Amino acid sequence: MELLKQRIAQEGEVKGDSVLRVDRFLNHQIDVKLLKEIALEFYRRFGQKEITKVLTIESSGIAIGAFVADAFSVPLVFAKKHQSTNLGDDVYTVPVTSFTHSRTYDVTVDKNYLRQEDSVLIVDDFLARGCALEGLVALTEKAHAHVAGIGIVIEKGFQGGGDRLRRRGYPLESLVVLESLRPLVYRDEPCKAR
Amino acid sequence: MELLKQRIAQEGEVKGDSVLRVDRFLNHQIDVKLLKEIALEFYRRFGQKEITKVLTIESSGIAIGAFVADAFSVPLVFAKKHQSTNLGDDVYTVPVTSFTHSRTYDVTVDKNYLRQEDSVLIVDDFLARGCALEGLVALTEKAHAHVAGIGIVIEKGFQGGGDRLRRRGYPLESLVVLESLRPLVYRDEPCKAR
Repeated sequence: MELLKQRIAQEGEVKGDSVLRVDRFLNHQIDVKLLKEIALEFYRRFGQKEITKVLTIESSGIAIGAFVADAFSVPLVFAKKHQSTNLGDDVYTVPVTSFTHSRTYDVTVDKNYLRQEDSVLIVDDFLARGCALEGLVALTEKAHAHVAGIGIVIEKGFQGGGDRLRRRGYPLESLVVLESLRPLVYRDEPCKAR
Repeated sequence: MELLKQRIAQEGEVKGDSVLRVDRFLNHQIDVKLLKEIALEFYRRFGQKEITKVLTIESSGIAIGAFVADAFSVPLVFAKKHQSTNLGDDVYTVPVTSFTHSRTYDVTVDKNYLRQEDSVLIVDDFLARGCALEGLVALTEKAHAHVAGIGIVIEKGFQGGGDRLRRRGYPLESLVVLESLRPLVYRDEPCKAR
């Protein structure tokens, strides 16, 4: 998605070899106009499938999930990152390791909101090692629902999580796949002198 | 807002005397069509003001914040609940007590995304004692930005946080204000036999 590459080039900040901060438009301050374009792009890629629900994980997946759910006219469900005192006991739970925050937490979804008859489009802003995303896939499968598609805004291809899920046969589409951050190289780009 | 009262009556779950769960359409599973109606209602109430940014707090404010920001055609900024390793040092920070989770945490916003020239509409899904909301007001004022309005979906009036902010002069509008949960009584409702 060219528009996204432009924004990453203009406003992304690379920290070290593996961190790309896009707080200016995606993760902290949110450019809703861009997110609506992203949602339409996911609709172009997955719109031919029957989707009954969009699933994401708090917090930074929620805004993109909201616009994708709107594009598909279905509800959004966001998985929660730890047992909330306000959440019922009747939940699916999967433990997930966060490398960003160096801890393991439980990811939960109320059983009422993910059902066997659901055909689920999973979306998230970032995909790196893929632990959170594998948690969402596991929750969906615990509910015996169908993973109809996985849509990611920015995949850090060099961290391997996306290819692991593709090898397992999931229809995973990332709007951009980065092969390296220094220099910024995208997968499937034609070779050129750098 | 009548539509919201209907949904609370049909799908809300009252737990004890002070907890109203609306996980079916607002807090966990999100009815995006309803959220867009809510966003339009906020636009009707605050649209005559100059708004440059919508501010909310993770996680459950993000979806409503996204649609409100879209209605006003401005960016959404969501405050983060604890110092993230990916967040820069250049942040405004306010300590906030959560009664729901019985702990105190830091609420932060990157200084780049809240500026002196901003005229801010603060939104959140729930208002009870108002600690999180007071944190958002304090962050805005630390940035010397203007609190142009505060929009709340569901206010639990009997917990006092909203009236405390109104007494301080903030233009706070809640789409519904509950005076009690058992029975469900809304503020400003005409008396009737119950």
